[in-house]
Amino acid sequence: MPNISMKMLAKELRLSVSTVSKVFTDSHEISEQTKQKVLALAKQLNYVPNPYASSLRKRKSKTIAVVLPEVADSFFAMAINGIESIAREKGYHVLIYLTHEQAEREQAILADFQSGRVDGVLISVSNETTSDTHVREMMQRGIPVVFFDRVCEETATTRITTNDRESGYLAARHLIERGCKRLAFLTIAESLSISRNRLLGCQQALAERRLPFADHDLVVCTNDDQQNYAIIKSLLQRKQRPDGVIASVEKLTAGVYLACKELQIAIPRQVKVISFSNQATAPILNPSLTTITQPAFEMGKMAASVLFNGLKKTNVQLKPETVVLPSVLMVRESTT
Amino acid sequence: MPNISMKMLAKELRLSVSTVSKVFTDSHEISEQTKQKVLALAKQLNYVPNPYASSLRKRKSKTIAVVLPEVADSFFAMAINGIESIAREKGYHVLIYLTHEQAEREQAILADFQSGRVDGVLISVSNETTSDTHVREMMQRGIPVVFFDRVCEETATTRITTNDRESGYLAARHLIERGCKRLAFLTIAESLSISRNRLLGCQQALAERRLPFADHDLVVCTNDDQQNYAIIKSLLQRKQRPDGVIASVEKLTAGVYLACKELQIAIPRQVKVISFSNQATAPILNPSLTTITQPAFEMGKMAASVLFNGLKKTNVQLKPETVVLPSVLMVRESTT
Repeated sequence: MPNISMKMLAKELRLSVSTVSKVFTDSHEISEQTKQKVLALAKQLNYVPNPYASSLRKRKSKTIAVVLPEVADSFFAMAINGIESIAREKGYHVLIYLTHEQAEREQAILADFQSGRVDGVLISVSNETTSDTHVREMMQRGIPVVFFDRVCEETATTRITTNDRESGYLAARHLIERGCKRLAFLTIAESLSISRNRLLGCQQALAERRLPFADHDLVVCTNDDQQNYAIIKSLLQRKQRPDGVIASVEKLTAGVYLACKELQIAIPRQVKVISFSNQATAPILNPSLTTITQPAFEMGKMAASVLFNGLKKTNVQLKPETVVLPSVLMVRESTT
Repeated sequence: MPNISMKMLAKELRLSVSTVSKVFTDSHEISEQTKQKVLALAKQLNYVPNPYASSLRKRKSKTIAVVLPEVADSFFAMAINGIESIAREKGYHVLIYLTHEQAEREQAILADFQSGRVDGVLISVSNETTSDTHVREMMQRGIPVVFFDRVCEETATTRITTNDRESGYLAARHLIERGCKRLAFLTIAESLSISRNRLLGCQQALAERRLPFADHDLVVCTNDDQQNYAIIKSLLQRKQRPDGVIASVEKLTAGVYLACKELQIAIPRQVKVISFSNQATAPILNPSLTTITQPAFEMGKMAASVLFNGLKKTNVQLKPETVVLPSVLMVRESTT
């Protein structure tokens, strides 16, 4: 069966295409009688108006984009769930784009949005992103943006974050209270606001107790699991081995556990481990993992809500503010 | 800055809108001189043609939809990665829809596609889906579909699956070889093709060794983690407790481990556990988990490739065939 077009409806009813089109926008210019006639035939032929034609008329695509570093991370998976729950409620469609942590790809993705493909954008920036030029350019074209989790702190729009600095402080203080004296902090990017803030919190807790934190106690990992495994192994083979490790990114956890297993270093007896993670498997790891758990679903929901509220207005101007949803420390065996 | 429209360009250059439009479709009707003039002004004003206008002209949206039961599952997350890698290469955009395992929602999502929002659909059906009517209706409107993982076996299109029956057989035979005599098979839906096939394989392995499999050895779980925990606990408290458990769905793993911990049942000494799972944490669980690991990324890639190949043709008619990518048994401590 060929797709029924407005043209075919018009021909069949001996009306102009413009008249038929106006029926579907419920224009007051069209008589009730004509409307009924068109709608009846449309129903009979199972005609559905093309959404892109409707987008053009209304200058609204009813579509938002979600731009993420990756999807195989439980934080982002849960955030997508939160975003989807709101988008469905509001009748919006969700395009998904992965940057794979590449700034260049992120810029190319955003540049494409300038054409009007989407009404708004939710973004968590890549760990290579150091400038917000691409985001500002898009905003200047009238496309509103809400940041979540990984934000550009200087950009004049709304940011949904968690209390990263406080969480970093909490993680370090917890390890110190459990007897740790030499902490290592694992990250994947020094430039990311969330990494910086978590590190600052950690350093603050150490400073308060007059404990050292040398440059090499900050261990910068990569996007490659094999490389990270080697980096973590070499950390644990140092003469002055850390007795506490903070994995500030979920995917670094497996590397720490596997390296400890291979080197026969007992968690938590010889090294205590805490991870920023939302993994459902944290309680059944060997040993069960102490985590800083982020409100991923709620952050996604909140980011989408702020964006959709903005889209209701003609001139979208989102408040340049940061909304902070708190994370939670879940103490388990890996730090006891 | 307001968005520049084709109309504004036309007015500025004293050309008709149709002439300007033809420049952007690179029509041979337009002189090289006019083309250069229009493109120069477009560049100067930073004009980008609206993708939806272009969609209407070409009757192509350059967009596909991915319809999934959920995203917080490592199989689906990895499959999205595979799909995205191909879509990016081909210059397509990816809309994502979650059914949350609800057949009704799945039907509503597909019904919306009939309007021409997408050029094609990749789908893994919900565990409530028992009929393919909604899929066939969409195909009749000229929108091609490729199934992956969870398929409708009767629908006349391409299905990308893994060797579910063989994997079920492999899982059960592995447990039997390790000394298990009484297996329980955990599933979330008896109606799903993949669940049925995994179960059939399991039953075949048991029958070959003349081992029993009673009706109540098939344990049907739900979409609720709390409920599943109760169901699994009651299974493990039976008088005749199973000595081997096959979790045919990744998310049931945590329930089995936590219930064993609470009931002080030792894995693998008292009960051996094998799970259909792609979780990166399988090697660091307590004990490390034996898995049937599916080629999730490759299945996503293959599904997208088949769809895009089809989209090149004017009349898309995908071959009604099943492409099988094999899963792998990864033996770890939970079955030793």
